[in-house]
Amino acid sequence: MKDLKCEITIDEMGNIFAVRPGRRKDVPATFIGSHLDTQPTGGRYDGILGVLSGVESLKRMDEMGLETEGGVGVVNWTNEEGARFPVSMIASGVWAECIPLSKAHNLKEVPTVASLPTAASAPETMKSALEKINYLGDVPCSYKTTPMAAHFELHIEQGPHLVSAGQRVGVVTAVQAYRWFRLKIIGRDTHTGTTAFEHRADALYAFALMMVRAREVAAAKGCLASVGIIEVAPGSVNTVPGQVSFSLDIRGPETALVAEVERELRSDFDKIAATEGAGIGKPCRVEWTLDFDSPAVKFHEDCIDCVQQSAHAVVADAPVADTKALVRPIMSGAGHDSVFTSKRVPTSMIFVPCKDGLSHHPEEFSSADDCATGASVILQAVVRYDRKRFA
Amino acid sequence: MKDLKCEITIDEMGNIFAVRPGRRKDVPATFIGSHLDTQPTGGRYDGILGVLSGVESLKRMDEMGLETEGGVGVVNWTNEEGARFPVSMIASGVWAECIPLSKAHNLKEVPTVASLPTAASAPETMKSALEKINYLGDVPCSYKTTPMAAHFELHIEQGPHLVSAGQRVGVVTAVQAYRWFRLKIIGRDTHTGTTAFEHRADALYAFALMMVRAREVAAAKGCLASVGIIEVAPGSVNTVPGQVSFSLDIRGPETALVAEVERELRSDFDKIAATEGAGIGKPCRVEWTLDFDSPAVKFHEDCIDCVQQSAHAVVADAPVADTKALVRPIMSGAGHDSVFTSKRVPTSMIFVPCKDGLSHHPEEFSSADDCATGASVILQAVVRYDRKRFA
Repeated sequence: MKDLKCEITIDEMGNIFAVRPGRRKDVPATFIGSHLDTQPTGGRYDGILGVLSGVESLKRMDEMGLETEGGVGVVNWTNEEGARFPVSMIASGVWAECIPLSKAHNLKEVPTVASLPTAASAPETMKSALEKINYLGDVPCSYKTTPMAAHFELHIEQGPHLVSAGQRVGVVTAVQAYRWFRLKIIGRDTHTGTTAFEHRADALYAFALMMVRAREVAAAKGCLASVGIIEVAPGSVNTVPGQVSFSLDIRGPETALVAEVERELRSDFDKIAATEGAGIGKPCRVEWTLDFDSPAVKFHEDCIDCVQQSAHAVVADAPVADTKALVRPIMSGAGHDSVFTSKRVPTSMIFVPCKDGLSHHPEEFSSADDCATGASVILQAVVRYDRKRFA
Repeated sequence: MKDLKCEITIDEMGNIFAVRPGRRKDVPATFIGSHLDTQPTGGRYDGILGVLSGVESLKRMDEMGLETEGGVGVVNWTNEEGARFPVSMIASGVWAECIPLSKAHNLKEVPTVASLPTAASAPETMKSALEKINYLGDVPCSYKTTPMAAHFELHIEQGPHLVSAGQRVGVVTAVQAYRWFRLKIIGRDTHTGTTAFEHRADALYAFALMMVRAREVAAAKGCLASVGIIEVAPGSVNTVPGQVSFSLDIRGPETALVAEVERELRSDFDKIAATEGAGIGKPCRVEWTLDFDSPAVKFHEDCIDCVQQSAHAVVADAPVADTKALVRPIMSGAGHDSVFTSKRVPTSMIFVPCKDGLSHHPEEFSSADDCATGASVILQAVVRYDRKRFA
C-alpha cells in the first residue's frame, strides 16, 4: 500500500486503513475490508482473502490508471475471530462505537489457545498485546475519525451451499444472530472411588447432560448451539470435578429465536444442576455470563445491488445457459466485521465457495479461480458504488 | 524419627523409611505406612493421618519403653494419589516390583493440576521432580532391599458407611478393583456458526454422550465410572472442537465387573463416535490407553485378625451395650499403598469415620477422637503382630 502511495493510518485498536485517493478529497472513501487473524489451527482464507482482495483491487486500479470520484480504501480489522481475545469483531465494534474502547483494551486472552500455554498463569490484555507488536496506534478508533462511504467484504462461504449447488458467487443479504456466553457449574470435589453416584455433585456430569440438551433445544428451533472451550477443576483422575467453566455459542436466523433457545436452556440447565447433587442436599448450580450479543443484521440495498450487478457481470462469460443461476442471494451463518460497519455505513458482502463448506480448520480451501472471481466482483462493486454515490 | 534414633533410608522413588529397632536385628520390621501427598484441593487427612499415626505410634512406644521382638517402622510412600504424576500408588508399586522403575521415573506430570499452570508447555518427569527436592535416594526401590514383615495402614474411610452407622472402626478386608484410562476422541474442527449439526464431527459432543452413557453402564453393574480430567482442542468459542482427551476411572467390587463395564463402554463409545460425523462421511473415532490396572485385593487373615482384636480392645470402654458393634468389616472403594504391599507381605488396613463421607475436598475432616482411636488400633495391631510372628 505504501508503494501505491496510499494514505495509511493505524488506530487505537490496531486497525490498519490504507486509502487510494479519489478526485474529491472532501468525501470519505469506499472501503474493502476484512481481517488477517485466524483460529488456532487456521485456515488460510477466512478473513485473509478479504484483505488480500482489497490490496489486489487497489493494485489493479493503479495498473489500469482507474480514477474514482471518491477514494477507495482497504481496512484490516484486528481480532475478528475472537480466538485469542474472546469477543469477536471487537475492533470493528469499537470503530462503530458499539463496544467501549476500555472494554476492548482490558480484554484478557483465553487460557486455552494452543499456542499460548502460559496464558492461564498470566493472561495478557489486548492493549498490552497491541503495544508489544507496535500496533497500538494514536488515531481514535471511531467511525467519526475514520469515516467510510461504504464497506464491502469478500469472504469464503464457510458453509456448503455454493459448493454443493455448483454456484460461484453468494450475494450476502443478511447475517444470522448470535450470542456468546460463559457458563460456570459449581458442584463438589469428591473421591471417584468411594463416592456413589447418588452422593455426587459432579459438575462435569452436569455439563455433559447440558451439552446434549443444548443440541436438542437448538435443533428443534432451527438454531445452533456449540461449546468450544471447557475447563475443569481440580483436574485429577480420581477426583470428581467440583467446577466446570465452558463457552456457549447460540446462533439462529432471527434474534428472537436465539433468545428463545437461551430462555429454554437457562431453565433446563437449572433443572439439570438441581438434580445432580440433590442426593446429598448440595445440588450443583449454574451461572451465566453474556460475553457478546450480535443481533441479526440486514445489509444495505444499494450495496447489495452493486454486488449483485457485479457478480452477474463477472460470471457472464461462463459456459452455461443461465449464468445468473451461478449467483445466489445468501445469509451468513458467521459474524463478520461487516456486521459492525453496517451499523454506521452502507455495507454488504460477497461469498465464494470453499471446499466441503469447511472452515476454522487447516484444510480450509478455496480455489484460485474462486478467489479471483470474488476479487473481480469486489473491485467492480466498489467502482459501481463510487458511480452510484456521485450519479 | 531422628530424635527417636530411628534408622532412616530414602530410596530411588523418594520413599522414606524409618525403623525403630527391635531386639532381633536379623528380621525385617513391621511397618506402619501411608502417604503425605494430596489431591489438588486437599484434604488434610487422606494419607497424612496414616503417616502421622505411624510417627505417633513410635513416639508412644518410646515413651512407654516398649520393646518389640522385630523392629517397627514407618514409611511415607511417594505420590500415592497420582494427582500430579498420573499413576496412583506408583512408589509402592515400584517397591513391590509391579511397576518398572524406569516407567515411574519417566512419568510426566499432568497438564491440568491447578498449581502448575506451566505444566502443559514443559511437563516435568517424576525423576526430575524428586531430584529438585533432594529426595531421589540411592537405595534401590524394592521389597528385596527394604523388606517388611507386614504393612498396616490407618486411613479415613472416604465414604459414608462408618459415619452414618455411628461406628468407630472399619477393619478393612479387601480393596475394590479399578482401571484408569486415557481416551482420545478425534473429530473435525469446524465453524460453529456455519456448520449444521448433521455436518459436524464434534468431539466434545461425542464426549458428552459418552460420559452420560458411562454412568448408566457402570450403575447397572454396581460399579463406578468417573471423568476427572478433560482437554479440548483447539479451544476457541467459535470452533467446534476436533479433539478431546479425557481420563476415565472405572471401579467395582470385582475385577471381572470392571472388565465388563470396560467391554461394554468400548462398544458403546465406538457406536457414539461412529454416529457423530456420519453425515459428512468423517465419523469421530475414539482411542483408549490403559494407564493403570489394579485388580481387587483381599488382605491377609493374620493382619485382619490383629486389626480386629485391637479394634475391639480399643472401643471396649465405650458407653454402649455392644461395643463390638462399633467395629465393622469393610471393603475399600479407593486404592491405597496397601494394595501393593499386599502383593509381597501380609497387609491390612484400619478405617476411621470422616465427616459426610467426604474426601478429596478441602472440607475433608475426621475428629481428633476418631484419629486417636485409629492410632491406638494401629499401635496395638503392630504389637499384636510382633507377638504373633514370634509366638
